[in-house]
Amino acid sequence: MFYPEAMTRLIEELARLPGIGPKSAQRLAFFLLDSPAERIDALVGALRDARERIRYCSVCWSLTDTDPCRICQNPARDRSTLCVVEHPRDVIAMERTREYRGLYHVLHGALDPMEGVGPDDIRLKELVRRVGGGDVREVIVCTNPTTEGEATAVYIARVLRPFGVRVTRIARGLPVGGDIEYADEVTLAKALEGRREM
Amino acid sequence: MFYPEAMTRLIEELARLPGIGPKSAQRLAFFLLDSPAERIDALVGALRDARERIRYCSVCWSLTDTDPCRICQNPARDRSTLCVVEHPRDVIAMERTREYRGLYHVLHGALDPMEGVGPDDIRLKELVRRVGGGDVREVIVCTNPTTEGEATAVYIARVLRPFGVRVTRIARGLPVGGDIEYADEVTLAKALEGRREM
Repeated sequence: MFYPEAMTRLIEELARLPGIGPKSAQRLAFFLLDSPAERIDALVGALRDARERIRYCSVCWSLTDTDPCRICQNPARDRSTLCVVEHPRDVIAMERTREYRGLYHVLHGALDPMEGVGPDDIRLKELVRRVGGGDVREVIVCTNPTTEGEATAVYIARVLRPFGVRVTRIARGLPVGGDIEYADEVTLAKALEGRREM
Repeated sequence: MFYPEAMTRLIEELARLPGIGPKSAQRLAFFLLDSPAERIDALVGALRDARERIRYCSVCWSLTDTDPCRICQNPARDRSTLCVVEHPRDVIAMERTREYRGLYHVLHGALDPMEGVGPDDIRLKELVRRVGGGDVREVIVCTNPTTEGEATAVYIARVLRPFGVRVTRIARGLPVGGDIEYADEVTLAKALEGRREM
């Protein structure tokens, strides 16, 4: 290698991060070497702090620094509605809409038999247990509109049928600001199928 | 904010890194939270280690863990030729060619009057001092083929004229594997101008 050994190791470690290729890792390494010590301490401190304090909520499995999380604890939230998402970041995306007032359930993945992800590998048992608890009247399945997300949605609808709760699926259609000309045919077909009276 | 505070801070710190936007910062933060402790320790360790050990060579201003650097110390390198580059990573790019056997001089930037970067802000004095030392017979200016890099090259040629050394500029032309159809007109003009007998 042409770099001093400590530099090579830093570049290698950075290149293991998702979305960071060898060129970005090199650029990051130079930036980190040239940064003042306080900036590095702030970054490392934030990392250690987040890893110490952030947990998964034992009720909804979202990210939290309190348990249960602030959403689960909030008396203003509608306890009869559960929004099921794949990932904690989907909770944030939903919260940003400021339209949803119910609770969440984070699966931490989607069913993917090809990759060996079965019902026991995601937080499905916990969902069934919560719905079995009796407060829930509607489960809105907000898994991704991918093959895995759709399969997971179908599975959830099936396992929740015995509880007599309403299970709905978030609408698929054209993204707002999108262009019909450039929409793929599957999205367009879904948008057509989901059309509503004006 | 919708994230727990420690998570928000980690995302903010990551988003300060070059080339990392808010979405990548969020993805990195989730990745770092989910990584095993050993991976995090390895990353932080590599960072601390690199910052402690890596210095600039006091002769050529390249990155090094010894002073002078291994290239400056190497008796097999040709001490009469100096390759002037803008950045330490350009040294690595040159070394990768395995064609260059001389020494280097890293400017740590290029002249850029619009941004207030003048001759005293880059390692130009050090270059003049080295050339004045008497060993150097040729200075190959390998600054970038940008406005700033070209201006720096012209400036270097001028300040080194009194020493009577040969000052050359790396060739500009079509990149190997490139396509004439897609080359910009300035590159094409430079390639034409730099044509050689076959």
